[in-house]
Amino acid sequence: MLDIDDSPITRNGNLLILAYDHGLEHGPVDFEDVPESADPEHVFKVAQHDAVTALAVQKGVAETYYPEYEDDVNLLVKLNGTSNLWQTEPYSPKNCTVEYAAEIGADAVGYTMYAGSNREGEMFEEFREVQEEARKYDLPVIMWAYPRGQPVKNDKKTDTIAYASRIGLELGADVAKVKYAGSQDAMEEVVDLSGRMKVVMSGGSKKSDRAFLSDVHDTVSAGGHGLAVGRNVFQREEPSGILGKLEGVVFEGKGVDGVL
Amino acid sequence: MLDIDDSPITRNGNLLILAYDHGLEHGPVDFEDVPESADPEHVFKVAQHDAVTALAVQKGVAETYYPEYEDDVNLLVKLNGTSNLWQTEPYSPKNCTVEYAAEIGADAVGYTMYAGSNREGEMFEEFREVQEEARKYDLPVIMWAYPRGQPVKNDKKTDTIAYASRIGLELGADVAKVKYAGSQDAMEEVVDLSGRMKVVMSGGSKKSDRAFLSDVHDTVSAGGHGLAVGRNVFQREEPSGILGKLEGVVFEGKGVDGVL
Amino acid sequence: MLDIDDSPITRNGNLLILAYDHGLEHGPVDFEDVPESADPEHVFKVAQHDAVTALAVQKGVAETYYPEYEDDVNLLVKLNGTSNLWQTEPYSPKNCTVEYAAEIGADAVGYTMYAGSNREGEMFEEFREVQEEARKYDLPVIMWAYPRGQPVKNDKKTDTIAYASRIGLELGADVAKVKYAGSQDAMEEVVDLSGRMKVVMSGGSKKSDRAFLSDVHDTVSAGGHGLAVGRNVFQREEPSGILGKLEGVVFEGKGVDGVL
Amino acid sequence: MLDIDDSPITRNGNLLILAYDHGLEHGPVDFEDVPESADPEHVFKVAQHDAVTALAVQKGVAETYYPEYEDDVNLLVKLNGTSNLWQTEPYSPKNCTVEYAAEIGADAVGYTMYAGSNREGEMFEEFREVQEEARKYDLPVIMWAYPRGQPVKNDKKTDTIAYASRIGLELGADVAKVKYAGSQDAMEEVVDLSGRMKVVMSGGSKKSDRAFLSDVHDTVSAGGHGLAVGRNVFQREEPSGILGKLEGVVFEGKGVDGVL
Amino acid sequence: MLDIDDSPITRNGNLLILAYDHGLEHGPVDFEDVPESADPEHVFKVAQHDAVTALAVQKGVAETYYPEYEDDVNLLVKLNGTSNLWQTEPYSPKNCTVEYAAEIGADAVGYTMYAGSNREGEMFEEFREVQEEARKYDLPVIMWAYPRGQPVKNDKKTDTIAYASRIGLELGADVAKVKYAGSQDAMEEVVDLSGRMKVVMSGGSKKSDRAFLSDVHDTVSAGGHGLAVGRNVFQREEPSGILGKLEGVVFEGKGVDGVL
Repeated sequence: MLDIDDSPITRNGNLLILAYDHGLEHGPVDFEDVPESADPEHVFKVAQHDAVTALAVQKGVAETYYPEYEDDVNLLVKLNGTSNLWQTEPYSPKNCTVEYAAEIGADAVGYTMYAGSNREGEMFEEFREVQEEARKYDLPVIMWAYPRGQPVKNDKKTDTIAYASRIGLELGADVAKVKYAGSQDAMEEVVDLSGRMKVVMSGGSKKSDRAFLSDVHDTVSAGGHGLAVGRNVFQREEPSGILGKLEGVVFEGKGVDGVL
Repeated sequence: MLDIDDSPITRNGNLLILAYDHGLEHGPVDFEDVPESADPEHVFKVAQHDAVTALAVQKGVAETYYPEYEDDVNLLVKLNGTSNLWQTEPYSPKNCTVEYAAEIGADAVGYTMYAGSNREGEMFEEFREVQEEARKYDLPVIMWAYPRGQPVKNDKKTDTIAYASRIGLELGADVAKVKYAGSQDAMEEVVDLSGRMKVVMSGGSKKSDRAFLSDVHDTVSAGGHGLAVGRNVFQREEPSGILGKLEGVVFEGKGVDGVL
Repeated sequence: MLDIDDSPITRNGNLLILAYDHGLEHGPVDFEDVPESADPEHVFKVAQHDAVTALAVQKGVAETYYPEYEDDVNLLVKLNGTSNLWQTEPYSPKNCTVEYAAEIGADAVGYTMYAGSNREGEMFEEFREVQEEARKYDLPVIMWAYPRGQPVKNDKKTDTIAYASRIGLELGADVAKVKYAGSQDAMEEVVDLSGRMKVVMSGGSKKSDRAFLSDVHDTVSAGGHGLAVGRNVFQREEPSGILGKLEGVVFEGKGVDGVL
Repeated sequence: MLDIDDSPITRNGNLLILAYDHGLEHGPVDFEDVPESADPEHVFKVAQHDAVTALAVQKGVAETYYPEYEDDVNLLVKLNGTSNLWQTEPYSPKNCTVEYAAEIGADAVGYTMYAGSNREGEMFEEFREVQEEARKYDLPVIMWAYPRGQPVKNDKKTDTIAYASRIGLELGADVAKVKYAGSQDAMEEVVDLSGRMKVVMSGGSKKSDRAFLSDVHDTVSAGGHGLAVGRNVFQREEPSGILGKLEGVVFEGKGVDGVL
Repeated sequence: MLDIDDSPITRNGNLLILAYDHGLEHGPVDFEDVPESADPEHVFKVAQHDAVTALAVQKGVAETYYPEYEDDVNLLVKLNGTSNLWQTEPYSPKNCTVEYAAEIGADAVGYTMYAGSNREGEMFEEFREVQEEARKYDLPVIMWAYPRGQPVKNDKKTDTIAYASRIGLELGADVAKVKYAGSQDAMEEVVDLSGRMKVVMSGGSKKSDRAFLSDVHDTVSAGGHGLAVGRNVFQREEPSGILGKLEGVVFEGKGVDGVL
């Protein structure tokens, strides 16, 4: 595990990753409510907000837009991803090498792990390559830890989320991004299982400010180290509003009422 | 993304790719109406027309005929392709390396992506290799972006076409070749989803001059950057006629009536 | 495409390949009528006939017997092959590398392509490796172009044979070996689809001299460049008889009656 | 086979491996009874006990915690592992290379082999890589020898356990970890089949002190060389108690009554 | 094909390979009648008999025991093998590289080929690697030529055995080990199909001395070059008895009655 507390992708030891791989993972539907969000330029501008410690994008978006923002944005290159057009066993192919990510200026790399899929084995092996290669470039590795597959009956159970996060620790991730487990207590179980590895909450689909901030506050209170958020930021007409509030909760120790 | 506006494969920022991989993809049937079109020499001659910014062919045709035309034709080597004799999950194997394409003089490379196929994962991974290798040779990468597979119910829906094009941007293509989406408005949606990546329209099966030029005009008006066309050129007895008209629409800002 | 007109495997631009991979492809049954044909030494002696421009054998036979015949026989190493003992999707694994073939003295290499098989993709990819590697050694590549697989209803149709041959041109073969299409006209269609790539006829199972020579004559008259023949030579008690006649038809412009 | 009697992972020729890969293999459930056992730090402290000759952990746990314990703990990096979330053919993917294990300080490496699985072939091949690579670093290889898969009706039969252990010898393992075969006689059969390769007993699920120590004593009396134990140590409130007793049985030739 | 008549693994041009891979292929059952045969040391001692030209073992047994016997035993490392615990399509994974075999002192290498299996293709490809790599080390390659798989109705038919042996010649083996074909005449057919490649008989399951020696005599009389034998030697209480008799038949031209 790298010590990432001095890395640009953390602030006071915590992270706020703005995730923007929806163009690949979900397609046009995620941009319908706020059409300008389809434009990577719009989102790079959003990512200049002080609250954002890293912007997570796929290779093509990174190499096209990052050069103009490299002074103001920390780049997390997501190394794998898949469209939602196909329908077999969950699997997320690697569409960028660590070497290429490093070349285009990545400050960190990300990898989606579908533990529970019958193709888990392949993903473990690809994660091994990613993790060992990333060590050579001193790049932190963030695992998108999402149990999925026919045997995973309920991916919202605390035990399942904790198991997914633990897999991150066991396989050598520096940060695991997991689903919110439903309460501060549940998030504590997840954090306890994760040892020294940092755990961040996944933003998920759009919610009200209060509901969303409350989940984030629970996570941080439970010992989690922040969040990775996409739709709950870029599907808002005015992203800087929610980012300012998240800044208070994630980095400044404020409560939900304090920031609302 | 490469800046291809100074590349030989564009003219005023737009492209007209003459696609000629039908011998591999479709076999003899596409050459029946105009038998001389079966002869690559005939098509290389057609490609000398000023309107054509690149000729897309498979490796074998490229290495056999291109040497005699290298002063007059820009070469786009199509790196994958498949016959239509087999019938399982859509997949297009790589039959030429980027290195070999560069060696035989390619100005750009092309790759067919069947997003939606259950073999999408393999194709994402092969595209990664192609894209990263092409960067070493400074060769633009054109993605033939064709969603296909059992889960893709309708590959003519605007959303599906836009999604396919966006995948090109996300994975690092420089140009995506997509199906015409049915109207200028629909093509605008596709272009909007594609960020800075250029989008060109696929010519498809043979149409009347007016109908075909009208689609191309919609595409260019929508912000698209031209087209890739095969049968609508080489299945005409006199290809230079339609090429002259396309030149007007694609590079000279003329309307359909203006060129007819 | 290599210019093979100066290569030892052609004579006056044409080829007569003696194919002898039946021990691997068919087993003992092909040697029953003329038992000495099971002995590679017997066949190497046959291949010393002036009419034979190359002898096609598998790696093991090549490395064992060729050293004694290298002054009198041109060696075509067949790089893939399979027994007929198994029964799933047509596929022919590579049992010799181009590098090894070159090392043991090959003048050319051969590869069987089952277009239409659901494993066509793998074979396209392996052919890519073979073709690109062969270029490094300046070795001509002969494609055994045999459409096969459940979707290939009739591999004797002119269109199917022409498609198979065209695939050879598209993928970079120097010569395609195809089934006889049934008439001179049909062979012309095949040749027309094949561009500058040479097409040779496959000998197939044993026939009478007249019937066999007539097919060969049709092929040459149609613009084909000769044949690859196995059983129609080595299953005859006196191979030099038919070879003398083939020499007339293939290299000396004689008619069937002229040589009989 | 390496001579491991001088290696730090043995003591008087025997081994007591503290296995702690349960976070990956089983998830949170194994830590429920003794919650602090979820914390790798707790287990590293336990491993400082003189009785423990090596601590077996996965890569991520190793690289995160081992640096602080390297003077007091011998590190066995488990190279493969899988979650129990998925449900197809038994297979354990490699999530760490030997090279990486060596780099982070491993004294030995471990690999789980599911002989009997229909993916046995892949595992044999991966074990080959592991074993040959480990030889370059002079690292002993411990095989977790667990027959598994639909054809394995009963993995507790003496013959099956003996076969599994023998596979370790045949494939080049230095130590095989096998299930306890039920009696000293049965363990003798296992040891007899294993030649010079050392055999250690797997601890399995938690038992009473007497029952557990009795199995261990049988193993050592049968010529086995110790044990690998996880839950029977870390699921006890006071691990040092049982470790002291195991020390007597495994390294000091004491009987069960003698240590209780 | 290597000239192996001067190699240590032949004597007067013939071979007697003592095969001892049963611990991997069959497990404990083969050692039940003569328990000391489970101990590789016992079998290495047997292999010191003058009649044995090579001992065939798997990698682990080789590296553990061979160093003490290297002056008296010629080592044939079997490169692939499988347990009989699993039950799908016949396939034998490679568990040792040629390079590693050479490093531990191999005088020759062996590979099992299941022609007829639906995984024949993979095995052809792996054999290619083995054969070409072995040439670099000047190591003879012995093919265990065993047709197997659902399409192989009867692996004792002369034609099938002859076909299997021929595959050895075609793919570049130096020696093929085949089942006894039932009579001297049948073995002659096998030998005739095998060209210059040496053919040895496989010992198979235990028989009476006379029956076994008679098969061996037929093989040698038919032009075969000896045998590979396991159970018919090590399952005898006094292996040197039968070895002495085999020596007479295989190397000294004696008849069955002459040695009994």
